[in-house]
Amino acid sequence: MPDPKASAVLLISSPDQRGLVARITDFVFRRNGNILHSDEHIDDEAGLFLMRIEWDLAGFALGRDEIRHAFEPLAQELKLNWELRFSDEVPRSAILVSKYDHCLYDILFRHRSGELKADFRVIISNHPDLRHLAEYFGIEFLVVPVTKETKAAQEALIITELRRQEIEFIVLARYMQILTADFVNAYPNRIINIHHSFLPAFAGSQPYHQAHRRGVKLIGATSHYVTADLDAGPIIEQDVVRVSHRDSVESLVRKGRDLEKVVLARAVRLHLENRVLVYGNKTVVFD
Amino acid sequence: MPDPKASAVLLISSPDQRGLVARITDFVFRRNGNILHSDEHIDDEAGLFLMRIEWDLAGFALGRDEIRHAFEPLAQELKLNWELRFSDEVPRSAILVSKYDHCLYDILFRHRSGELKADFRVIISNHPDLRHLAEYFGIEFLVVPVTKETKAAQEALIITELRRQEIEFIVLARYMQILTADFVNAYPNRIINIHHSFLPAFAGSQPYHQAHRRGVKLIGATSHYVTADLDAGPIIEQDVVRVSHRDSVESLVRKGRDLEKVVLARAVRLHLENRVLVYGNKTVVFD
Amino acid sequence: MPDPKASAVLLISSPDQRGLVARITDFVFRRNGNILHSDEHIDDEAGLFLMRIEWDLAGFALGRDEIRHAFEPLAQELKLNWELRFSDEVPRSAILVSKYDHCLYDILFRHRSGELKADFRVIISNHPDLRHLAEYFGIEFLVVPVTKETKAAQEALIITELRRQEIEFIVLARYMQILTADFVNAYPNRIINIHHSFLPAFAGSQPYHQAHRRGVKLIGATSHYVTADLDAGPIIEQDVVRVSHRDSVESLVRKGRDLEKVVLARAVRLHLENRVLVYGNKTVVFD
Amino acid sequence: MPDPKASAVLLISSPDQRGLVARITDFVFRRNGNILHSDEHIDDEAGLFLMRIEWDLAGFALGRDEIRHAFEPLAQELKLNWELRFSDEVPRSAILVSKYDHCLYDILFRHRSGELKADFRVIISNHPDLRHLAEYFGIEFLVVPVTKETKAAQEALIITELRRQEIEFIVLARYMQILTADFVNAYPNRIINIHHSFLPAFAGSQPYHQAHRRGVKLIGATSHYVTADLDAGPIIEQDVVRVSHRDSVESLVRKGRDLEKVVLARAVRLHLENRVLVYGNKTVVFD
Repeated sequence: MPDPKASAVLLISSPDQRGLVARITDFVFRRNGNILHSDEHIDDEAGLFLMRIEWDLAGFALGRDEIRHAFEPLAQELKLNWELRFSDEVPRSAILVSKYDHCLYDILFRHRSGELKADFRVIISNHPDLRHLAEYFGIEFLVVPVTKETKAAQEALIITELRRQEIEFIVLARYMQILTADFVNAYPNRIINIHHSFLPAFAGSQPYHQAHRRGVKLIGATSHYVTADLDAGPIIEQDVVRVSHRDSVESLVRKGRDLEKVVLARAVRLHLENRVLVYGNKTVVFD
Repeated sequence: MPDPKASAVLLISSPDQRGLVARITDFVFRRNGNILHSDEHIDDEAGLFLMRIEWDLAGFALGRDEIRHAFEPLAQELKLNWELRFSDEVPRSAILVSKYDHCLYDILFRHRSGELKADFRVIISNHPDLRHLAEYFGIEFLVVPVTKETKAAQEALIITELRRQEIEFIVLARYMQILTADFVNAYPNRIINIHHSFLPAFAGSQPYHQAHRRGVKLIGATSHYVTADLDAGPIIEQDVVRVSHRDSVESLVRKGRDLEKVVLARAVRLHLENRVLVYGNKTVVFD
Repeated sequence: MPDPKASAVLLISSPDQRGLVARITDFVFRRNGNILHSDEHIDDEAGLFLMRIEWDLAGFALGRDEIRHAFEPLAQELKLNWELRFSDEVPRSAILVSKYDHCLYDILFRHRSGELKADFRVIISNHPDLRHLAEYFGIEFLVVPVTKETKAAQEALIITELRRQEIEFIVLARYMQILTADFVNAYPNRIINIHHSFLPAFAGSQPYHQAHRRGVKLIGATSHYVTADLDAGPIIEQDVVRVSHRDSVESLVRKGRDLEKVVLARAVRLHLENRVLVYGNKTVVFD
Repeated sequence: MPDPKASAVLLISSPDQRGLVARITDFVFRRNGNILHSDEHIDDEAGLFLMRIEWDLAGFALGRDEIRHAFEPLAQELKLNWELRFSDEVPRSAILVSKYDHCLYDILFRHRSGELKADFRVIISNHPDLRHLAEYFGIEFLVVPVTKETKAAQEALIITELRRQEIEFIVLARYMQILTADFVNAYPNRIINIHHSFLPAFAGSQPYHQAHRRGVKLIGATSHYVTADLDAGPIIEQDVVRVSHRDSVESLVRKGRDLEKVVLARAVRLHLENRVLVYGNKTVVFD
């Protein structure tokens, strides 16, 4: 059932030209839309205009189905790439996880507290260890073990399951398997990963070990959309915490867990609130 | 001589109503303005609409003198409070300082490097100690000593001098005298102070001593517009740094100096770029 | 059963004098102790010496029971206040909570993951809401409702229960009741509270509302030992997060939850690892 | 003239064994030394013991010249690598700089304010631009232009000058030339550089451009001892600041300047206070 307080969001990118803000806000205003948020960014180098505009559906002259149709001519005239979203349309979502539980429970608790507007349908893991968490939160838990030999087949199985459940959004909550390009390309800008380093430093495996060896004075975490290049997708959010020579690899892991949770949760929330616009290999985050 | 790359900025506040963004951006668009930045904020509690819009003057249909006249009818219709600024109109400015040199030299270096678009005409101090800095940077230095008995007269003298020089903006770079309400009211939202604590904690004198006594684990600095209430004006910027039991009052002072410089400089820059809008006792910072 | 890898910790405070470090480390060395950590602090103003020394019990010449007896003469000679702890002696602990679940589940997950070496025996709440969490983690849950009229009696009931269970350490995980001086004095430096502001700013009730009204640019959280003075006990840990005019009270609450969890967890861990030494109204945190 | 309040500092590293802290502090205590600071670190992986101990020279039984002789037998017995420093022995120092002035003036102001205990004898630059700064602070300024062809000869000239002036410590305050291995090896752990990225991310040239291209959400700065491997020496200090899609390369540069200044100044101060111990390619920072 639609939320009576729902809002519409347009995410727009296009070559820059005069009048874009005026023309787009005018479209909303003339149909009696109350603008709740409007922000735009111009990337001078790329000559790109990027915009997010959100308005109340209450009192708006058009029904949800009519908006798309009404906006299309303006979009064609102005050469806009655009996506229309509604704040109460909650994407069917999945979480992939291995054995570490901290990101999983963090996401699930935030979801239960109302912080994350996703519809988590299934948790898929290559290990059975975290079933109890899924059960506590009442979400389906699927174990798909992966070995070197079975990897391709098992990934196909996962994709089949995601399709069957019509999953639109996937969170990798410390899933310790690298997804194939096929998998990734099936969900463009729809898979968010948490990497436990301040990318591009310490990409790949064992970043805390790498950080310890290098003797850095801060460690970080990075959430990003997954692309076919490992740990190289568009960054949504990063943060760091201070460490010192006193920190063993174990205490880096402990400190890092807190970072990973917060950085992943922020990225997931920003995505779910339709605040992230990807262009090239970068993001605009309209917060 | 006007800068050919100059831009116009409108800072607007008004009771919230539908269509404000559309009507205002439309005003700019119809006169061939290229919008460089547009951001607005709605304070739901106060029912207030607050907006900053900046556009290129190059190619704009109106001359600088005509903009005000042309905008007035729209502003009256929409009941807007508004200020019009031009990016190349640099305010005549003064710095008040006592004996500490760190904020003064920091402001002056940033100014010389082009980071701060102010026209610093005079540095006024109640002590002669920092004359050498003023001389190095080629700015007039005025000593106005203050004692309990002479305070009123000396402050009058400072105001006279500021008026004579047509000063529009004042930075208190660790000026250790409390200004009277008369002084403050003569420059509403035109005097920026740096207080060496995380306000509202440790207002008043000797905040580092207060912080040391209380045993806090972070110390802060706060830049704010000066109002008649001591250390209670609208906050523009704050930051903190970690401290521990190892820090004596002296090391708090040392760590705090770095905070004070950065926090004051950020506030001054934001003000000079017309990015700060005051309402009630709060600020909207359009960064 | 004692842990074969256990260590002993001495927490010492005394008037400062020459030779304290040498004499104390010598005590450990002569009995074949391998020092794992030794740190001291001298508070010049107070003329106080504060020290933490930790050594391996494996290979140490004295049994646990003998250490106290052997150290007493030296302590008397040097006029030391001292406490002896063993890393594997895990205190019987209780959590007091009201309706907010974020700090409670955070503590319980960290505990389960091995991050917090406490023996949580009971969770006491003035509301039944969080029983499901206690059950999931298998910890006793006791509801002790409090009204203005029943407050004294109900607090007595809580104390009786804590005594019966021989509780040594208490975490207030957003417990929304003020404890009486009698309660607090029964557990000196044994009750840790989380306050959702950067103390001493915004003590008392509704700190996020206070912060929003004041228009601060950072919000904080503070964990401290509870004393008879509300929100004025020795601070163990603080942290902050950046906010802006865009943040409503609701989003301050959301951002603040992440701070509260992390700041409380750090303080509880530091306490449980015997790293916090209280003197006057301040703490030395030997991290 | 020696400072009557001077202290002695021992920086020690050695294979770990029992009794090191006790034996070393006992050495100081038996000669009537008042220990001001003592901290040690054990690197379990490397099996290394690292220690800093500082004590008052006032009242100490040995003269400065005698300490070395008296400590030698103990050091041999315990197989210690050690360095003895005195807090009032201020190293003859040089600054190498190119055209950017922000790190240079920051270092010089901190030095003048007493924050940095170095004896800056000469500023050497490959450009004449910053002569005025050197003159304002009364320090010799030497221009040694460098081209591809003259690089080797000019570097030899710089080394000759540094030797002539008996320079012991060198700060690279954004010196835009890569030093040869010969130069670097002549001053092991005696040259501190500031790199304008969060190393190991964005080593090499134009780190702000690299950061902008990658779309990171934080930028950093790193101070490190210079080794023959570019940007790969032992890290002393790092810090970061938040950025967003709104930041152009120019604003990354502006924000980065504040980081560079603070991070370099912290590293220089830590070095000058004999608080940094290098082992392998890492540092222990005894703050």
